Amino acid sequence: MNFYPQSVLKLIEEFSKLPGVGSKTAQRLAFHILNIDMEQAEKLASAIVEAKKNIRYCSVCGNLSDSDLCPICKNDARDSNLICVVQEPRDVIAMEKTREFKGLYHVLHGAISPLGGVGPDDIRLKELLSRINSETKEIIIATNPNVEGEATAMYIARLLKPLGVRVTRIAHGVPVGGDLEYADEVTLTKALEGRREI
Amino acid sequence: MNFYPQSVLKLIEEFSKLPGVGSKTAQRLAFHILNIDMEQAEKLASAIVEAKKNIRYCSVCGNLSDSDLCPICKNDARDSNLICVVQEPRDVIAMEKTREFKGLYHVLHGAISPLGGVGPDDIRLKELLSRINSETKEIIIATNPNVEGEATAMYIARLLKPLGVRVTRIAHGVPVGGDLEYADEVTLTKALEGRREI
Repeated sequence: MNFYPQSVLKLIEEFSKLPGVGSKTAQRLAFHILNIDMEQAEKLASAIVEAKKNIRYCSVCGNLSDSDLCPICKNDARDSNLICVVQEPRDVIAMEKTREFKGLYHVLHGAISPLGGVGPDDIRLKELLSRINSETKEIIIATNPNVEGEATAMYIARLLKPLGVRVTRIAHGVPVGGDLEYADEVTLTKALEGRREI
Repeated sequence: MNFYPQSVLKLIEEFSKLPGVGSKTAQRLAFHILNIDMEQAEKLASAIVEAKKNIRYCSVCGNLSDSDLCPICKNDARDSNLICVVQEPRDVIAMEKTREFKGLYHVLHGAISPLGGVGPDDIRLKELLSRINSETKEIIIATNPNVEGEATAMYIARLLKPLGVRVTRIAHGVPVGGDLEYADEVTLTKALEGRREI
C-alpha cells in the first residue's frame, strides 16, 4: 500500500495513534494538514509540544497546572479544609463548571481496578492521606459512578474512618433533564433511597 | 470558562480547527497529548511540519509528491497516452487501489461549482489541455458522481471535443455488494441504461 509519499504515510500513522482516530479519519486529517498553510500547521505542531512542555501536575492536588501549584490550590478564597476527590483532571473541570464547590480537589489519576491491574498503591492515595489533618472538615468522594469508582470510594471511606474525618459520596439519582422511563433500575433504586422531603 | 491552563486551552483550540473535531473531541485529544510521553508528542508535531515541508504537487499531474515529478508520472511502464482526470489527490489513491489503471492521472484540485464560486479557471484545466497531443488515446473522466463532478465532466468533454480526442466517463451503476432495494432511483436508472450483455 505504498500509494502515499513517505512523509504523508508518516503523518497518517501518527494521526491514527490518537484516540478515536481510525485509518480513514487519519487520512482525512492528513489531507487537511496538506491543504492548510504552513503557518497554521506550525501553530498546531507547536501547541502540541508547548502543552507537553508547560503542563505539569499540581504538587498538592495533582490537577493540571502550568506552575508548581494549580490556580485552585493557590486561591486563598477557597476552603482548604474541604477536599473533593476525583479520578482525573478532566473531572476537576466538570466540577468547576457547576460553580458550586468552594473547597480544594484531590486528583487520584485513576481508580482501583483489580481486573485492570490497578491497586490502591497505583493511585494518589498516600498523597491524600498526607493532606488530612485535624482541621479537615469533609472529604467528598466524586469518583465515577461505575464499578471501579464505587470500589475506590468504598476503599477511601474505610481508609479514612480511623482518622475520624467525615467522608461523603456524591448522590446517585436520575439525571436532571432525563426521562424516568429510560432510567435503569439501579439508578432508580438509588434515586428512591436518596429521596428528600420537599 | 478559564478552567484550563493557558497552553491546554491553546492546544484544544488548535485541535478543534481540524475537520470533524468538535470541542469535546478536541478536549479528549488534548488530554491524550498530556498523557503520552514527550517523545511521542514531538513525533506527531514533527510529522505535521515535515509533511508540509516535503510535500508538493507533481508539476505534471498535480498529484501529491515529494519531488518535482510524482512516482506515477516518473514510471516509464505507465501509458502516458491514457489520462484519468480526478478531482483530488485522494482520488488518485482510490483509483490506484484498484490496480486496474495503467495510465497517468490529472488532478484538477476541485470541481466546477457556480454556487461555490469555483469556475473553470479555478481548477487545473489549462494544465490538462497542455498535456494533450496527437498521441493521446483517451481521457477518462473520474470526477465524483455528484452535481459538481458531473458538471465538470460535461465541461471537459465539450472542451476536448474540438481536439478530436476520445473522452470517456466512468460508469454509474449499483455498487458491488450493495442491495437493489436500497439503491436510489437515479443510480438504478443509470444502471439500467448502462446494462451489458452477459
